[in-house]
Amino acid sequence: MSQFFVLEGVEGAGKGTVLSGLIQRFSARGTDLVVSREPGGTPMAEEIRDVLLAKRNEVVAPDTELLLMFASRAQHLSERIKPALAAGQTVLLDRFTDASYAYQGVGRGLGADKVEQLERWVQGDLRPDCVLILDLDPQVGLARIQANARATDRLDGETLEFYQRVRQGYQARAASAPDCYRVINADDSPERVLDAAWTALGEFIE
Amino acid sequence: MSQFFVLEGVEGAGKGTVLSGLIQRFSARGTDLVVSREPGGTPMAEEIRDVLLAKRNEVVAPDTELLLMFASRAQHLSERIKPALAAGQTVLLDRFTDASYAYQGVGRGLGADKVEQLERWVQGDLRPDCVLILDLDPQVGLARIQANARATDRLDGETLEFYQRVRQGYQARAASAPDCYRVINADDSPERVLDAAWTALGEFIE
Repeated sequence: MSQFFVLEGVEGAGKGTVLSGLIQRFSARGTDLVVSREPGGTPMAEEIRDVLLAKRNEVVAPDTELLLMFASRAQHLSERIKPALAAGQTVLLDRFTDASYAYQGVGRGLGADKVEQLERWVQGDLRPDCVLILDLDPQVGLARIQANARATDRLDGETLEFYQRVRQGYQARAASAPDCYRVINADDSPERVLDAAWTALGEFIE
Repeated sequence: MSQFFVLEGVEGAGKGTVLSGLIQRFSARGTDLVVSREPGGTPMAEEIRDVLLAKRNEVVAPDTELLLMFASRAQHLSERIKPALAAGQTVLLDRFTDASYAYQGVGRGLGADKVEQLERWVQGDLRPDCVLILDLDPQVGLARIQANARATDRLDGETLEFYQRVRQGYQARAASAPDCYRVINADDSPERVLDAAWTALGEFIE
């Protein structure tokens, strides 16, 4: 049976590490898993990602950013996610529509209405079975990024206040529909965060 | 006083030639003119244009195409068109939202509702003062393109039936709001098409 899982979180929350760990554990179970990311996930959607994340002098209008996110999502859904689910595969995504609610809706202040409209438009009734949110104080996350000297993109260059709004945006999403959201405390060792994430997913895996 | 003019038309209708001629005539009048094109018009919007028009093996979902068009439009409006109009300049665009109604709404069969929703969203109340539509049988237009061995892009590779729908889409737009649309017969010599376009614009130029 196909299932659809999403991993979300603010910058520096350790999404990459958790994702690798989840892939290994799914693999150990023999799950037919498709792993992908947003924005991106098809060659064209990855080109849109590049346009979105490039550092540039030009001011990027919030509407431009949101429409590009959903353009990439429409392509990813149509060419990769829906076919995988239709084929009975399990899909695990690094970010999906909750990131649009948190970053563009709350972070940029566009509001939830526009995001909701586009969500209905490109997804129809399709919703993830479970969304894991790695929750972390953005100050801790940004310190981790600096300590790791990780390559940064345009969306890494925002203010602390922006990431605080993003975190609140994620928390609000989790509170709005607790059934399919699990908030994981990411201010812990990588092993314990991964264990907590896998345990939380376990409730949903069929 | 700022004014906003748009030139539209199917492939091979001679938009480029008419645009050059109009620019010369505006220049002779001493008009403070900003000329731009869609999709495109800012460095980021031109990158979106490249993503849109690249020939690719991947099927491009109609929603992806429409959302990319409006992402580029949101950026162009915010960073170039609105500032120019606010500064009292006259704006002349090679394609704008009517192209989305004609190509994506009718050509791709997405319908007018989605286009209208995005139009309200990114434009608010902003509408062109006049839209010139170069009208031509697509068979004639495609023959011209082949004769000129013009470089083609993804949107040049559609069927004749597609361009016939696009033409009908443009005609329907003109019929829906005759006040600001002028349909120019483009099956004539370049000089006469340009003269007709300039005469039509003359009614609107202040």
